[in-house]
Amino acid sequence: MPRFNPLVANLSAPPIPSVFAWASAYDGSSGPMIDLSQAVPGYPPHPEMLRLLGENAASRAYTGYGPIEGEESLRKAYAAHLSETYGTTLAAGNVHVTAGCNQAFICAAMAVAGAGDAVLMTDPYYFNQETTLAMLGVRTRFAPCDPANGFLPDVETLAAAITPDVRAIALVSPNNPTGAVYPPELIAAIYDLCVTRGIWLILDETYRDFLPGGAGRPHDLFARKGWEETLIGLYSFSKSFCIPGHRLGAITAGPAVVEQVAKIMDNLQICPPRSAQAAVATALPLLADWREENRREIARRVEALRTTMAGVPAWRVGAVGAYFAFIGHPFEGTPSARVAERLAKEAGILCLPGSYFGERQEGYLRFAFANADVETISRLRERLSNFG
Amino acid sequence: MPRFNPLVANLSAPPIPSVFAWASAYDGSSGPMIDLSQAVPGYPPHPEMLRLLGENAASRAYTGYGPIEGEESLRKAYAAHLSETYGTTLAAGNVHVTAGCNQAFICAAMAVAGAGDAVLMTDPYYFNQETTLAMLGVRTRFAPCDPANGFLPDVETLAAAITPDVRAIALVSPNNPTGAVYPPELIAAIYDLCVTRGIWLILDETYRDFLPGGAGRPHDLFARKGWEETLIGLYSFSKSFCIPGHRLGAITAGPAVVEQVAKIMDNLQICPPRSAQAAVATALPLLADWREENRREIARRVEALRTTMAGVPAWRVGAVGAYFAFIGHPFEGTPSARVAERLAKEAGILCLPGSYFGERQEGYLRFAFANADVETISRLRERLSNFG
Repeated sequence: MPRFNPLVANLSAPPIPSVFAWASAYDGSSGPMIDLSQAVPGYPPHPEMLRLLGENAASRAYTGYGPIEGEESLRKAYAAHLSETYGTTLAAGNVHVTAGCNQAFICAAMAVAGAGDAVLMTDPYYFNQETTLAMLGVRTRFAPCDPANGFLPDVETLAAAITPDVRAIALVSPNNPTGAVYPPELIAAIYDLCVTRGIWLILDETYRDFLPGGAGRPHDLFARKGWEETLIGLYSFSKSFCIPGHRLGAITAGPAVVEQVAKIMDNLQICPPRSAQAAVATALPLLADWREENRREIARRVEALRTTMAGVPAWRVGAVGAYFAFIGHPFEGTPSARVAERLAKEAGILCLPGSYFGERQEGYLRFAFANADVETISRLRERLSNFG
Repeated sequence: MPRFNPLVANLSAPPIPSVFAWASAYDGSSGPMIDLSQAVPGYPPHPEMLRLLGENAASRAYTGYGPIEGEESLRKAYAAHLSETYGTTLAAGNVHVTAGCNQAFICAAMAVAGAGDAVLMTDPYYFNQETTLAMLGVRTRFAPCDPANGFLPDVETLAAAITPDVRAIALVSPNNPTGAVYPPELIAAIYDLCVTRGIWLILDETYRDFLPGGAGRPHDLFARKGWEETLIGLYSFSKSFCIPGHRLGAITAGPAVVEQVAKIMDNLQICPPRSAQAAVATALPLLADWREENRREIARRVEALRTTMAGVPAWRVGAVGAYFAFIGHPFEGTPSARVAERLAKEAGILCLPGSYFGERQEGYLRFAFANADVETISRLRERLSNFG
């Protein structure tokens, strides 16, 4: 057999399916499996969302090819939503629709970096961002986040890690895997660092809609003069509308970036799937109250997680917020994958090992607690207490 | 502004939108625009197809993440269809669903080649394949196809073009842009060349369903022992089901290739859009007769194109088949983009310049004639005769 591209051959198998295999081996003795593995909302999409998806998919209007950059209706609706969220004016031309946020990331990464260039990430990192760069031959530099500082990145550490080949810093806030919510001042300081060093800031805000209430704006960068020359924002409609299977995300950027991304997207898939775009364009203003109620519900789950974990002090909460908690396990020296596998098979708790998010993270596990309701989260206490 | 990735920055803008701009400048004086630009069926999808798309999109069953490789129902249904088409046995494990055939190509290309490797293509080539490789930093080698031989590739020419860095030959049959249908013996000879030289054969058969009736099987490669170690087949559901806006394609390959592609797809978009997959899984056997009737209709359009062009002998038919004709224009020395722009603006005929498919192709235009019905095609005679 001819050889494969070693950059792809050397990648590990996608992590989520292998974790599901542990779940199948659980005997159910502690009660139903508590699935905290993949970040998917534990509640269903709104009935009106499903109706809109069905109506548009059945329409001949969306069977042909559409604009590469996305449906004008969705670009406009999302630009209006962004303008309100960030207290500034963004236009349809600032939006490029993608088939989910992983696709938004690969488009942003390819627009600014090629094989031999480098991207600076925080450690822990979101694994698909790391494997995406690896398969493109883009090098990765890492700035470790200090657990003592709630896993927030440190500007000095980032600055020191910018080697001459670094083309961009990739941030995720609210963070995956830790759940840490980066304060606006911290995001602004990292943006300023990027401006000074002449590199891009790729800011993934997939979990933005689940910030705590009253927290104000996520940051003020889109209101800065000249932001288009530094910032590339990423987002996913999957979590907020509970429709990851329909694959919709977006890039927010200046027109020059959108132009580069369109060339990449034309090669990747010509245009994003169309009928779901039309459905979300309508749902974006229509289901604002429903999304706000979900935000409150997720906030209640954050509190439930904090309370529950306070009852099992051997398990430390490294960080918690929006969708995730990064939990220090009590088995020092045991690889996190072994702990996660045993938790799944013996205690019926499915989560991801810290090592999937960086080799420094063997002491941690990622709990995607937003998947579970308050009552389910509270059941973690007994299961973790009994787990030895 | 920080720099863009030069491999992306150096790409031209996507060609189809720029051609649409010429159409807007047409004054309508010769009658309605005859759009032979993008390869999209000129007839609507079957009503049952739309009903299935709507029904599945409205279902909660497809809102969550699905399998990376695609819905099991579609992988099985497509494997059964392939088994029948090629007279052999293919299984669901031989299928990886993608969001369209451009995505199938980039996955196949990345699986076998990285930056600095090379892929050998025929010239003329399908432009998105060339730009995909270019943006990945994969080099391209070209084997010119002889117009005197109906633009069929020549095995000796291909063999001579295999430099040590070539990891694969990329073929398209029926061909885009020429319409040339590669005979099974030719495809087999190129496959044998790939086996001998230890490289992959990436065979794009997007237009397979529009082969002439009674032509027999497209080729016998999937029935060869050990085909999985050389062949990667690509396909699109867009043309046969008239649903390009729903983005569905597929890779047919051995399990080892499918495993590599899954790693790439996980980074590209986690999974293909789900509800349309479920709809096509049902439609694949259900709408077989409808697809057969469309195949006959497209064959009638091939005949209409041949007859029409015989009436304007200054315009030569370089090749014609399945979906496309590659037409030699009579304006020697005039760039093909200039001829195509004038044809759009003055004669109301929208087509693509030969230069989009290779710099050697300035003497040609691509007519995606399958977009137009027989009556519309026949009107080309008068418009081309009057065009000077």
